[in-house]
Amino acid sequence: MSEINLNKAAIALDFGGTNIKIGLIRQGKVLNQTLLPAHSGAGIIPRLPDVQAAVMDLLEQEGLALGNCSGVGIGLPGLVDPQHLSLLSINEKYADAVGFAFGAWVEEAFGLPIVMENDARAALLGETVYGTAHGESNAVLMIFGTGIGTAALMNGKIIRGRHFQAGILGGHFVTDVNGSRCSCGGVGCLEAEASHWSLQGWLKNQQGYANSLLAIESNIGYRQVIDASQSGDMLALSAMQHLYKHWSSGIVNLVHAYDPDVVILSGGLMKAKDIVLPELVRRVHEQAWTPWGKVRFIVAENPDSSVLLGLSHLIEEGIDIDYV
Amino acid sequence: MSEINLNKAAIALDFGGTNIKIGLIRQGKVLNQTLLPAHSGAGIIPRLPDVQAAVMDLLEQEGLALGNCSGVGIGLPGLVDPQHLSLLSINEKYADAVGFAFGAWVEEAFGLPIVMENDARAALLGETVYGTAHGESNAVLMIFGTGIGTAALMNGKIIRGRHFQAGILGGHFVTDVNGSRCSCGGVGCLEAEASHWSLQGWLKNQQGYANSLLAIESNIGYRQVIDASQSGDMLALSAMQHLYKHWSSGIVNLVHAYDPDVVILSGGLMKAKDIVLPELVRRVHEQAWTPWGKVRFIVAENPDSSVLLGLSHLIEEGIDIDYV
Repeated sequence: MSEINLNKAAIALDFGGTNIKIGLIRQGKVLNQTLLPAHSGAGIIPRLPDVQAAVMDLLEQEGLALGNCSGVGIGLPGLVDPQHLSLLSINEKYADAVGFAFGAWVEEAFGLPIVMENDARAALLGETVYGTAHGESNAVLMIFGTGIGTAALMNGKIIRGRHFQAGILGGHFVTDVNGSRCSCGGVGCLEAEASHWSLQGWLKNQQGYANSLLAIESNIGYRQVIDASQSGDMLALSAMQHLYKHWSSGIVNLVHAYDPDVVILSGGLMKAKDIVLPELVRRVHEQAWTPWGKVRFIVAENPDSSVLLGLSHLIEEGIDIDYV
Repeated sequence: MSEINLNKAAIALDFGGTNIKIGLIRQGKVLNQTLLPAHSGAGIIPRLPDVQAAVMDLLEQEGLALGNCSGVGIGLPGLVDPQHLSLLSINEKYADAVGFAFGAWVEEAFGLPIVMENDARAALLGETVYGTAHGESNAVLMIFGTGIGTAALMNGKIIRGRHFQAGILGGHFVTDVNGSRCSCGGVGCLEAEASHWSLQGWLKNQQGYANSLLAIESNIGYRQVIDASQSGDMLALSAMQHLYKHWSSGIVNLVHAYDPDVVILSGGLMKAKDIVLPELVRRVHEQAWTPWGKVRFIVAENPDSSVLLGLSHLIEEGIDIDYV
């Protein structure tokens, strides 16, 4: 790693289900960052010209040219093969990104090296290298976004696995064998039961939906349910019990799987951390089998930049393909 | 590793919930092996004189002395610290083994080096080094014994984790957030729902128990339920659906957690593999999110010796404490 590279900026593209976050990062500092709507249901390819234009805008704002950049990092909410630079599988969003030649696009659009990674893995790297969890070497992360992303760090190494799937499927551990069909093809996955995207479907199947404050909301997510529960709405209170059960069991499953010191939480849900965190921590501490002590909880301070920071780290360091 | 050590025999002690298996192993071959009832509810310390005597008997039968042995390996169905040679935590059986000075006992009884490991981890090593799964380097194992033990091998390394808990708690991943209280303190763990020990309690809580063939059995386990289901008993058929759901979800959770090529199954349940395996494989293949292909299944051919073989390997190679 030459000194020249360290002084160059990394271009980081975080393709989320709802928004595309674009950042310029140098040595762990976000120089500038912007946001585009994802329209991910319509695919990724139609969005790439706008992404390219947004990057060039950011560079111009910072007085930088592509020659001042070290590479482009791409984060995606699916199964990513960082070795062959491709997306292996994804649910419902960015369907055209599976098998798309990201390397060729980056070469053509920017003429720079590329790295790719699952977004939750990048976020875990971002938080442990540059963020709130700096210095931790045994950690799991759960991001409550549109879906529920996870990742694991063991003895300082990001867990990737034989087919690059390890650590990132915590949202698809089964937490209710009698639960709902998941978009992944499974049944009763944590995501199918307690994610932002599955919440509206769950609520509509409950008795008392018609009489709930939530029946008049057009777009129900975590925020609306938390607000209605604070107002004493019966259905929302019952939904919170359902969510706490699944979220805490999902975290316990990660703790039991990867044996971390610390659980890092991120994503939109953490805007309500003052409300949800105490109950979540209480339940996890009650249920996790950890005779050595209690896992600590860390909430990401800047959830909007953790993926970007992790991608910039991968550009600087290179992905270590010798997987665990 | 000197040639002398390779020619020596390893003494392996597998403290199961129901039986204590004792073996003499040399270079992956079981020279001789015997079995004692565990009486594990009464603790481990009262059993140690009998274990010592049984080892000396085996040695005599083989014409060997302690001087012909390389060490003693101890496998236990709990959280084991192989570095400090102690049992950290265990549920309901061998309660007095937590904190017991196994090193001092082995020194006094045999004057030999000691290794210790969780029994499922030892079984996974035994199967991948010497057994049916020889040569696999990305594998998970599930043993259906009294409880449900698990272990994981990633990129050729046994996963141990920061507090030696990683890989072995697959029986305590939550598969039903609305399920039964588990002996570990959790709720709805796979073990609490679908293990040999939890089966009788589950059955007694079902409607139709009084009219079932199973109501007249005094000691109900997997075998009795499988037999009754083959006879068309309605409760037993419903129990099999319950078990298949949890077992397959438990395996899917391991696949999603550790990203293996192969799932190794062992334990008493596998005596009925002709009946249960096809349905189990079908469900796992249907539910697991593995775009790379399908996990293979391997059934341990000699489940009674896999822990013993793994312990002998640890004596020969030494436990690699540089954990992942």
